[in-house]
Amino acid sequence: MKKLINVPENYVNEMLEGIYLAHPDYVTYTEGDLRCLVTSNKVEGKVGIATGGGSGHLPLFLGYVGKGMLDGCSVGDVFQSPSAEQMLNVTKRIDSGAGVLYIYGNYNGDIFNFDMAAEMADMEEDIHVESVVAGEDVASPKAAPGEKNTRRGVAGIFFVYKCAGAAAAAGKDLQEVKRIAEKAAANVRTMGVALTPCTVPRVGHPGFKIGEDEMEIGMGIHGESGIRRGKLETADEITLEMMEKILEDIPYCAGDEVAVLVNGLGATPLDEQYIVARKVNMILEEKGIKVHRYYVGEYVTSIEMAGLSISLLKMDEELRGYLDAPADTPFFKQGIV
Amino acid sequence: MKKLINVPENYVNEMLEGIYLAHPDYVTYTEGDLRCLVTSNKVEGKVGIATGGGSGHLPLFLGYVGKGMLDGCSVGDVFQSPSAEQMLNVTKRIDSGAGVLYIYGNYNGDIFNFDMAAEMADMEEDIHVESVVAGEDVASPKAAPGEKNTRRGVAGIFFVYKCAGAAAAAGKDLQEVKRIAEKAAANVRTMGVALTPCTVPRVGHPGFKIGEDEMEIGMGIHGESGIRRGKLETADEITLEMMEKILEDIPYCAGDEVAVLVNGLGATPLDEQYIVARKVNMILEEKGIKVHRYYVGEYVTSIEMAGLSISLLKMDEELRGYLDAPADTPFFKQGIV
Repeated sequence: MKKLINVPENYVNEMLEGIYLAHPDYVTYTEGDLRCLVTSNKVEGKVGIATGGGSGHLPLFLGYVGKGMLDGCSVGDVFQSPSAEQMLNVTKRIDSGAGVLYIYGNYNGDIFNFDMAAEMADMEEDIHVESVVAGEDVASPKAAPGEKNTRRGVAGIFFVYKCAGAAAAAGKDLQEVKRIAEKAAANVRTMGVALTPCTVPRVGHPGFKIGEDEMEIGMGIHGESGIRRGKLETADEITLEMMEKILEDIPYCAGDEVAVLVNGLGATPLDEQYIVARKVNMILEEKGIKVHRYYVGEYVTSIEMAGLSISLLKMDEELRGYLDAPADTPFFKQGIV
Repeated sequence: MKKLINVPENYVNEMLEGIYLAHPDYVTYTEGDLRCLVTSNKVEGKVGIATGGGSGHLPLFLGYVGKGMLDGCSVGDVFQSPSAEQMLNVTKRIDSGAGVLYIYGNYNGDIFNFDMAAEMADMEEDIHVESVVAGEDVASPKAAPGEKNTRRGVAGIFFVYKCAGAAAAAGKDLQEVKRIAEKAAANVRTMGVALTPCTVPRVGHPGFKIGEDEMEIGMGIHGESGIRRGKLETADEITLEMMEKILEDIPYCAGDEVAVLVNGLGATPLDEQYIVARKVNMILEEKGIKVHRYYVGEYVTSIEMAGLSISLLKMDEELRGYLDAPADTPFFKQGIV
């Protein structure tokens, strides 16, 4: 394990100490618990938005706490859910009477704890909480119609945060912010490819093995199985395979307008991400799908995994307005300076 | 070589195609040459600032072309200087009569070509060009007093861009923008550590070898030798060693005010960068040095090298004002949204 760390047990807390020192104008923590991160700029009367999840995915999750996006985040150990108590502490701090929306990825530990936190918030604190669970990885199995979403939540949650955060910042009420979050979540699809594994610091060795000339298409951000392992192909071939699976899923059709996120998983240079963005653009152009906006970079990582994911958000005028709204967090900034 | 690319010969141009597709509001190219990148938002009457250098360091160099920073960038092959002709083309496009400042890193190929471009701009185009060569890697040999700077230019150039870009945006004339760039360059120092090598796509194998349990302190961003190779130590130990070398160099003293850049070299997770930022803060606090602002993330990379660098900029009121000014480029945004 080759990492710039001290003892693995302190990995998450030392990272958080660094974040609070570096970004005091943006974030602080509540109840004396470093893992209960909240905005330094609470807006009274606004619907609060909280997220949370395991560490190891920076800038996800906590990186999107800031103006025009989220208000708080509970932080778990690497690839582990934070506790319901931590979620409740964040909820109490960010609520200002307009209620709180939880937006998080579709993982059992997070669902269990967020549901418990929502119940405690309602029973003990009289805070109205609603939840939107994001799951859009087309490499994971699709639920039957009417069934609960069974898909993993991966990088597409960025779009859900962005649109819901803008709706909350615009003064919408809890039900409306929830509706926007659900609409964004329903219109986003993602697929990833992994070239190398990653190592959880406390574990000390890679979570899986992959051959020197191999890739795995569809792998999840904790190393969950993808749809196929094979010899490494060219960027264009891999992009085409991923895009075909994404495009047929909703489906995305000629005349649609989308936003594109090409997301590096940790060790993949920006150059490669732009080479993939170029091919994504060619494919969309050929299909007659219009791209409104590109996001390229590390938005949701898997520690030091090499690989990337592609996410598409299908937009109407409403989502486009929220996507285009300004945002200012330590890790994501958009808007006119 | 495990990369998401097509043929290595097309690596740079395909990356550039992706960048132009993703960021048309920010950047375009001139003379039909993808490698002559210029701002899409030319400001008439403003001093133009150009940079350039080899690819493989994204977001350096081209990523800092935008409002409040640079106006153009000539783009070389991976770790290779662009040509004087390309630099001249960029110069012609960004000049609006107020002259052009070249800011680039201290490498022989770049110096040779930028000097030739400056001469051609003067002789053939009647464009007044001045140059500032940034070199601040304390792991490379220091020139004798009065001699030409012999140090490698690494991540600290970000601060030079930021301050000079803000001075140009504020309407300062060429000599004044040059003075600010020189002042920033004189007050910045950097040191890096590498944990793994990187692979130039056309070469196909790593540029050097480093043991599974080894690190090299002071390595340059093209794999140039550092000051010491040894067993991997803890983040705190490594940070302390790097900071001692940086702090004694100018030197930085109690009562000084600095900006800090903790820069990931490509494959190192943000978590580790913040763990290092935390230790940097402890050291500076102990020394009585005040931190005005932190920048943490990938600012100057070395393809997929694991490792990071620490840069300090010593500031007075003038530099602080320019550092704090807003900026808006595809890869760096700062300011009030």
